[in-house]
Amino acid sequence: MNMHELYMKLALENAKGTKGQTTPNPQVGSVIVNDGRIVGIGAHLKPGEPHAEIHALRMAGEQAKGATIYVTLEPCSHHGRTGPCAEAIVAAGIKKVVIAAMDPNPLVAGRGVKILQDAGIEVIQGICEAESVKMNEVFNHYIVNKRPFVTLKSATTLDGKIATHEAHSKWITSEQAREDVHRIRHESAAILVGVGTVIHDDPQLNTRLPEGRNPVRVVVDSHLRIPLNARVLTDGQAPTWIFTGSETNEKKRQEIEDMGAKVFATDGQRVNLEQMLDILGRHELSSLLVEGGGEVNASFVSQGLANKLVLYLAPKLVGGKEAPTFLEGLGAVTMDAATQLSDLTVEQIGPDLKLTAYFPKSMK
Amino acid sequence: MNMHELYMKLALENAKGTKGQTTPNPQVGSVIVNDGRIVGIGAHLKPGEPHAEIHALRMAGEQAKGATIYVTLEPCSHHGRTGPCAEAIVAAGIKKVVIAAMDPNPLVAGRGVKILQDAGIEVIQGICEAESVKMNEVFNHYIVNKRPFVTLKSATTLDGKIATHEAHSKWITSEQAREDVHRIRHESAAILVGVGTVIHDDPQLNTRLPEGRNPVRVVVDSHLRIPLNARVLTDGQAPTWIFTGSETNEKKRQEIEDMGAKVFATDGQRVNLEQMLDILGRHELSSLLVEGGGEVNASFVSQGLANKLVLYLAPKLVGGKEAPTFLEGLGAVTMDAATQLSDLTVEQIGPDLKLTAYFPKSMK
Repeated sequence: MNMHELYMKLALENAKGTKGQTTPNPQVGSVIVNDGRIVGIGAHLKPGEPHAEIHALRMAGEQAKGATIYVTLEPCSHHGRTGPCAEAIVAAGIKKVVIAAMDPNPLVAGRGVKILQDAGIEVIQGICEAESVKMNEVFNHYIVNKRPFVTLKSATTLDGKIATHEAHSKWITSEQAREDVHRIRHESAAILVGVGTVIHDDPQLNTRLPEGRNPVRVVVDSHLRIPLNARVLTDGQAPTWIFTGSETNEKKRQEIEDMGAKVFATDGQRVNLEQMLDILGRHELSSLLVEGGGEVNASFVSQGLANKLVLYLAPKLVGGKEAPTFLEGLGAVTMDAATQLSDLTVEQIGPDLKLTAYFPKSMK
Repeated sequence: MNMHELYMKLALENAKGTKGQTTPNPQVGSVIVNDGRIVGIGAHLKPGEPHAEIHALRMAGEQAKGATIYVTLEPCSHHGRTGPCAEAIVAAGIKKVVIAAMDPNPLVAGRGVKILQDAGIEVIQGICEAESVKMNEVFNHYIVNKRPFVTLKSATTLDGKIATHEAHSKWITSEQAREDVHRIRHESAAILVGVGTVIHDDPQLNTRLPEGRNPVRVVVDSHLRIPLNARVLTDGQAPTWIFTGSETNEKKRQEIEDMGAKVFATDGQRVNLEQMLDILGRHELSSLLVEGGGEVNASFVSQGLANKLVLYLAPKLVGGKEAPTFLEGLGAVTMDAATQLSDLTVEQIGPDLKLTAYFPKSMK
């Protein structure tokens, strides 16, 4: 690891520390080094508050003059609440700027660097780039597509089942794995299930962690079959949004809205998932955790709408030709038509495995 | 790591090097240390040839006097081709014996140690024990149960499928993973499939590796439905043994036997798997690799006849409510009745994951 990477790692650590608190903004960290000494450290802490570079420049004060600033994301060029960071860097007399990743929006990328270079500042790009891009995967997707980053989450036995043939599923994974799921819920803007899950399990879909934040609860319910006594309608723990098809029962819709939930109609007999994602995006929900059954998951996968898979595997076998798996629907006809995932990683969580992988980049 | 562990690790490395060449004997390694110097190294290389301790004692010669011998398995007490090793150790003047694991046969365990202790030799047990036991898992099972150690092997997509809904399965995993399977075949005394697989895929069930050894091919075929032009009957690459139920078509049986295959009838309409394992054991086949479909696998699991699971997971999703999984049958009714596996390990093989886990010890 060279010195550039060393300082950038520190900037990344500070950025990672802000996980979940910068939405809808990205996580960004910054470090200023003058003559081999760290003279400023910063991170973007909260939307509406200063960007990472501004915090670091303030800490450095006069020592920013002639210094090198490390920043995990290209300094901004637009006039937001704190002014363009690129201009602040120029004004502070910084001599060199080291950047991990460029602005994720290809329409804007490069503008911050141009301001710096036009002012005669040396700019180095791509130091620890992959790490910065991955840290902001949700933001990067949302800012370009204006739709939430979709994570499919499931838990199965080693033989691929999400329940027994009698639909018994409590519990597949360990307490530690279930706690990890609640941490992901805490970090998600919204959580989605199909109405079948609501009817069968009556879940709360909340974050059961101390200081946990509850995501918006989204139910895919093409024909407004949701029971009026469902917890997601009655418990008041978090907003609940129901998405339906175009033919809705107006009386039921009114009853649901009277209970405080929102109902969104989409075009078509069944819920139009792309329209739904557009609507969620317009409401600035940048991430969606899909905890669907096999049919809901298959709709997301076959329409190319999933970005990431998180799969917990429990070291047990349940068997059963009729026991459900987490991906049903019709499925691919030949094996070479299967959806190839990339960047597979494995982590041990208690007795279980947590697998993470990504859907092809062409996914919407 | 203390000095005992250091020397025992070397003995284990030598034993591991003999994988596949000692069957039906266990893999055993030995190191002799005198005054802080290694003076002898040995491993059991082949059935009928000297045990590990004898090789090491020969190398040490006069320097065995007053030395410490490390051996991965309790020295034998029986009069085999090379005499009891425990007596040879006493005769050589060894002062201390360090043992990893005791004799796996509880009826014999401790006899070798007793000979040593009766001769005034200090015996230390249990150094690197788990590693030695695992290395000889096949032998340990076979010597006690007189039945082959049964490994279930399968390969699935991340959504648990072994084929598409149209039974297309070529290929789920990478070339590297498939080569790993051939290595396991090379190390297995026998390989088993159901007749359905023979009818559908017409597999060769051989080891496609340079210098690979072919296992005995076992087909579970309750009603002798195997086609007479099946490769396992015609290609002459390895012995083929067909297990049937009690009601067999005598003409078909004769035709199969005329082609050089063996036919074994078992009691009952369907193949009696326990009887089959007894027969394989009597023929000194100490390990059986089951490459069954979901129904064959479910029979082994539900009857408690499987010892180890090897599962390759490919980073892809195929989907399909009707697509088969590797464990079908009826399956458990409630999740807490699932078969709990232990000692789960994960390994990356090319783009795929290889999971290994063990069935409950009470399995036969």
